Amino acid sequence: MKIALVQFNPIVGDIANNARKIVERVLEAAQSGANLVVFPELALIGYSHHDLLDNAYVVDGIEDALAWIHRHIPQDVAAVVGTVVRNPSESGKKLFNSAAFLESGRPVQYVHKMLLPTYDVYDEYRYFEPAKGQSPIEYKGIKLGIHVCEDMWNLSKYSTYHMYERNPVDELVEQGAELLINLSASPFSHGRHQLRTELIQDICAVHHLPFLLANQVGANTELIFDGDSRVHGPNGELLRCAPSFEETILYWDTHDLAPCQDPAHDKIEDIRDALVCGIREYVSKSGIFPSVLIGLSGGIDSAVTAALAVEALGAQRVMGITMPSAYSSAGSVSDSIELANNLGIVCHTIPIETAVSAFEGMLEPLFEGTSVGIAEENIQARTRGVALMAVSNKFGHLVLTTGNKSEMAMGYATLYGDMSGGLAVLADVFKTDVYRLAEFMNAEALHDLIPRATIDKPPSAELRPDQKDEDSLPPYPILDEVLRLYVEERLDVHSICERTGHAEAFVLGLLQAVDRNEYKRKQAPPGLRVSSKAFGTGRRIPLVMKFDRKSVDVLKLEGNEV
Amino acid sequence: MKIALVQFNPIVGDIANNARKIVERVLEAAQSGANLVVFPELALIGYSHHDLLDNAYVVDGIEDALAWIHRHIPQDVAAVVGTVVRNPSESGKKLFNSAAFLESGRPVQYVHKMLLPTYDVYDEYRYFEPAKGQSPIEYKGIKLGIHVCEDMWNLSKYSTYHMYERNPVDELVEQGAELLINLSASPFSHGRHQLRTELIQDICAVHHLPFLLANQVGANTELIFDGDSRVHGPNGELLRCAPSFEETILYWDTHDLAPCQDPAHDKIEDIRDALVCGIREYVSKSGIFPSVLIGLSGGIDSAVTAALAVEALGAQRVMGITMPSAYSSAGSVSDSIELANNLGIVCHTIPIETAVSAFEGMLEPLFEGTSVGIAEENIQARTRGVALMAVSNKFGHLVLTTGNKSEMAMGYATLYGDMSGGLAVLADVFKTDVYRLAEFMNAEALHDLIPRATIDKPPSAELRPDQKDEDSLPPYPILDEVLRLYVEERLDVHSICERTGHAEAFVLGLLQAVDRNEYKRKQAPPGLRVSSKAFGTGRRIPLVMKFDRKSVDVLKLEGNEV
Repeated sequence: MKIALVQFNPIVGDIANNARKIVERVLEAAQSGANLVVFPELALIGYSHHDLLDNAYVVDGIEDALAWIHRHIPQDVAAVVGTVVRNPSESGKKLFNSAAFLESGRPVQYVHKMLLPTYDVYDEYRYFEPAKGQSPIEYKGIKLGIHVCEDMWNLSKYSTYHMYERNPVDELVEQGAELLINLSASPFSHGRHQLRTELIQDICAVHHLPFLLANQVGANTELIFDGDSRVHGPNGELLRCAPSFEETILYWDTHDLAPCQDPAHDKIEDIRDALVCGIREYVSKSGIFPSVLIGLSGGIDSAVTAALAVEALGAQRVMGITMPSAYSSAGSVSDSIELANNLGIVCHTIPIETAVSAFEGMLEPLFEGTSVGIAEENIQARTRGVALMAVSNKFGHLVLTTGNKSEMAMGYATLYGDMSGGLAVLADVFKTDVYRLAEFMNAEALHDLIPRATIDKPPSAELRPDQKDEDSLPPYPILDEVLRLYVEERLDVHSICERTGHAEAFVLGLLQAVDRNEYKRKQAPPGLRVSSKAFGTGRRIPLVMKFDRKSVDVLKLEGNEV
Repeated sequence: MKIALVQFNPIVGDIANNARKIVERVLEAAQSGANLVVFPELALIGYSHHDLLDNAYVVDGIEDALAWIHRHIPQDVAAVVGTVVRNPSESGKKLFNSAAFLESGRPVQYVHKMLLPTYDVYDEYRYFEPAKGQSPIEYKGIKLGIHVCEDMWNLSKYSTYHMYERNPVDELVEQGAELLINLSASPFSHGRHQLRTELIQDICAVHHLPFLLANQVGANTELIFDGDSRVHGPNGELLRCAPSFEETILYWDTHDLAPCQDPAHDKIEDIRDALVCGIREYVSKSGIFPSVLIGLSGGIDSAVTAALAVEALGAQRVMGITMPSAYSSAGSVSDSIELANNLGIVCHTIPIETAVSAFEGMLEPLFEGTSVGIAEENIQARTRGVALMAVSNKFGHLVLTTGNKSEMAMGYATLYGDMSGGLAVLADVFKTDVYRLAEFMNAEALHDLIPRATIDKPPSAELRPDQKDEDSLPPYPILDEVLRLYVEERLDVHSICERTGHAEAFVLGLLQAVDRNEYKRKQAPPGLRVSSKAFGTGRRIPLVMKFDRKSVDVLKLEGNEV
C-alpha cells in the first residue's frame, strides 16, 4: 500500500478553504498512486482554533465541510482527516478531537483522541472530552493504529508536566495494530526534531512496528509548526522525513524499508527558519498588511529582525525607519543605513527631537523641579512608537517589534514605545542567541549582512547620555542562563544558585524583576514561539500577586517554635 | 454547633500572609464561639493563581503554610481551608484542588474537588486531577458534606458549557451528609446573586438539607469576587447572607432556622460596587501606585471612570488631566473641570497641539501628498497617551483607561493612545450601561456629580472636526444588543437577525468588526470583569484566522450538486 502523509498548512477557522485544499491534496496523492492519504490533527479548523470551538455554528460548519470532503473522496482511496466530532453523551465536553477515516460510499469511522494536553500553550480539555478508548481501523487488510498527537507522548522520559493513566499506542498494538499512524499539530520548539525521533524510536523499540507521523506546518499567530512529518521503520530507523517549514506530501510504500538520511538540525538555523516562517505566515494569513515596518536603532535586535523580515517577505516588502534623538550615537543612523543597503530595503530617517521637545515643553509646568529620569527616557521611546505607528497607519505596513526574550523578561522595554507593533519577532530568543542568529546569517550570506559595528558595539537603549544595557542588567550570558533556568526550567532561586554559583540576592533580584514586569508582557504583541516555554499564552502568571519566597521560610521557622 | 463562614480576601501567591490571616480569623471565630470555621476554595494561594502552581517550590510553600496553620488551630475547633494537595499517583495531574479539614492534634482530612471548570476564565484542568469521589466528614456527630465550588453546579439549568458525569452533592447526600458546605472562589458577574440563590434552592428542594457557601471576596486583576456567602435552610430559605464585596465572618448556629431578608440586588448598583472593588483592590494589591490618573475628555466614559475611582480611593488619590487639541469642543475642557470640581479631584490641562504639530512636521516629508485620515487622528490619541504615561512615570500614578465594552468590541479605540494604561475599568460595561451607571451615581449623590452636559452630548472621539461616534457606529442601544448576543450569548449572524430583526449585512458587518479587532484587545490592559463573558482571559480568539460564514454555505450548496 502506498501512503501519503500531507504536511498541511491550514488557516485557522477557514473551514471551507481548508476543505477545498484537503480534497485537492487527496486527488493529487491519488493521482500519484496513494491509497491512504493522512492529514494532520484538526486539519479542517486549524490549530490552534481556541474559542472558535465554543460556537455551535462553527462546529456546524466543520460538520458540513467534512461531509463535503467525504463526498469528494475518489474510489479506492481512504483519507484520514483531523476534525472535531460532537460528543453524543449528555455529559462531558461537547466535542471530541478526532481522526475521521473517509472512504467513498462508506460510513465515516472515527478515532477520538484520548490524551488531551492542557498545559503550556495547550487548552484541549477546554473543548474536548477524552476518548474512553481507540481501536485499529482495518483497511486493505492492514490494521491501522490511528491516533492523535499527544496520544503518542505518554512516556515518562518525555513528560514535562505529568503522565496520563492510559497509553493509547500500547492499547492499539494490543488490539492488533500493524502500522502506527499519528496525526499531529505539534508546534516547533528548538530541539523538537531530535525529541520526536527519540520518542518514536523508543516506541518502535517496544512494538517493532512502522510509525508514521503527519504534522501541521506553517504558523498561526505565535505558534509555528515545522511539519517534520516522517516515516520510521519497525526498528525505529528513519525511512522518510519531510523538509521542515514547507507544505509537502510525503509518500511511502509499505514494502519499502530502505532508510533515509536523518536531516541535520542546528538550533540557530532552525530558529532562523522558524522565525522566517512565522513572519511570512503572520503577514500572509492576517491578510491586512502587504509589508512590514521596523524601527532601526543601529542595534543587533532591529538588525536581525530586519534581516529575518527580508528573508520572509523580500526586500520590497520591508521598510526601515531610523529615528535619532539627542542621545543617539552617530552609529544609530549610519549602521542602520549600512544595514538597509546590505538588505536592499528602503530606510527613512525621521529625527524625533521636535516632538520630544514639544512634549517636554507641554509637560514643563507639571514637571518643574523634578529631576530627569525614566519619564523622560520613555518619552523618547514613545515618540518613536507614535511615529512608527503613524507610518504604519498611513501606508499599511505591519510594525514588527524587535525586543528579545531577555528584555521582555526583565521589562527592559517601553510599553507603547519600542513595544508598539503587531508581531514580536524575537520575543522568545534570548539576547545571546540573537547574536548567534546574526553570526549565522552573516556566515550564510558570506559577508557582513548585519554590519560588524552593530554586532561589536555594546548594547544600549540610547535613551540617555552614554547609556549601556550593562548599567541596568548583568552581562547577557549570565542573565540569559538565569532567565532560562527560571522561565524555561521553572527552577526557584535556591536551585538556580546551586546550578550557577551566583549569590542568592543577585538571583532573587532578577527573578523579582521578571515577576514584576508581567504587566508589560500582558500588553505586548504576540511573540513567535521557538522554545519550550515562551512568554505569552503558554505562561500565565497573575498580574496582581505577591509570591514572597522569604516569608514562607520565616513561617516554617516560626512553626517549629510553636 | 456554631459555624463561621469566612468571606476571605487572599492576595494571590502571598501564601505566608494568607496563612497568618487564616489563623487570625480562626482565632477570632473561636472567640465568638464557633466550632467550625470555613474558608473559601484555594484560600491559601488565592484565586486565580494561574501558572504559579506549575512551580514545585510554590506547592512546597503551600504545604509548609498549611502545616503551620494546622499547628495553630486551637482545641475544640475545626477549620476547613481551601488549598492544593499533591496527587500521590504516578499518573494524572500533579495536584488536587482540595478542602483541608484541620483539627488540633489529628491528621488532616481532605476532600478533593471532583468537577473542574475548564472554560471561560477557568483553567482548572490545567493544574488539577479531578477526584474520583468524596465522602462526608463526621464532626461533633454531624456528617458534613464538604465540597468545592463547581461540585455544586452540575444541574442542566445552570450549565452553560457542558454537564459533568457525576453529581458530587447527590453522592455526598447518598453517603449520609447532613449539612452541605461549599467552598467557593466564584467570581462576580451581574445577576450572580440571584443565580446562586436559585441553584441552592433547587438543591435544597431535592435534598432538604441546610446549605452553606463560603466564597472568596475582593478582586485579583480582572476577576472580582463579591463574596455573597450564605446559609440556606433545609427548604432553601435564606438564613444568612454576607454583604457583597466586603471581608466578613458569617456566623450561624445549626439550630437557628429563622429566615433573613434576601438583600436586594440591582444590576447597575452591583456593577458599580464591583468596579469600585476592582479599582481599589488592583491599586492596593499591586502595591506599586498609591494613586490613579485619568485622561478626562469631557465624555461619559472618563467621567464615570473618575467617579468610580473617587469612590474606590478617595479624591486625594485621583488625578485628572484634560488634553485638548484643535478638534476638541469647548466642553471637553469645561465639562472635565466641572466634573473635577464635583469630585474634588485635581485636574491639570495639558494642550497637545505643540506635540501634534511636531509629529506632523516630522512626518511631512513622508506623508506629503496623502490625505488626512486615521493616521492623523491616531497621532492625537497617541500624543495624549504619551503625555498621560509621562505623568504616570514621573509621579507614580496608575493610568486608568476609560474604554467601554462597545468600543473594545468594535476596535473604536487607539492602541497606545486612549488604550494606554494599567487597568481598563469599563472594558466589560456596554456604553448603554455606562450611561445607566452615570445616572445611578448622580441619583445616589442627589445631584449631578457627572455633569448633565457630559450625559446629554452626543458621544464623540473629537479626533476630527464635528466627529460623532454615530458616524462610524450604529446607535449604541442597537449596537449593544447585537454585541451582547454575539459576545455573551455566542449566537451567529442568523440567530441574531432572527432575534433583532436587523438585516443580515448589517449584523455581519458588526460581527466582522469584532473579529477583526482581536489584535487590539490582545494588547489592551486587563479589564474588570462584570459579565458572564468579558473580553480577556475568558474569551480566547485566534488573532490570525479567517472564519468566513458565507464560504461554508457555498460549500454546502456545492456538495448537493455533486
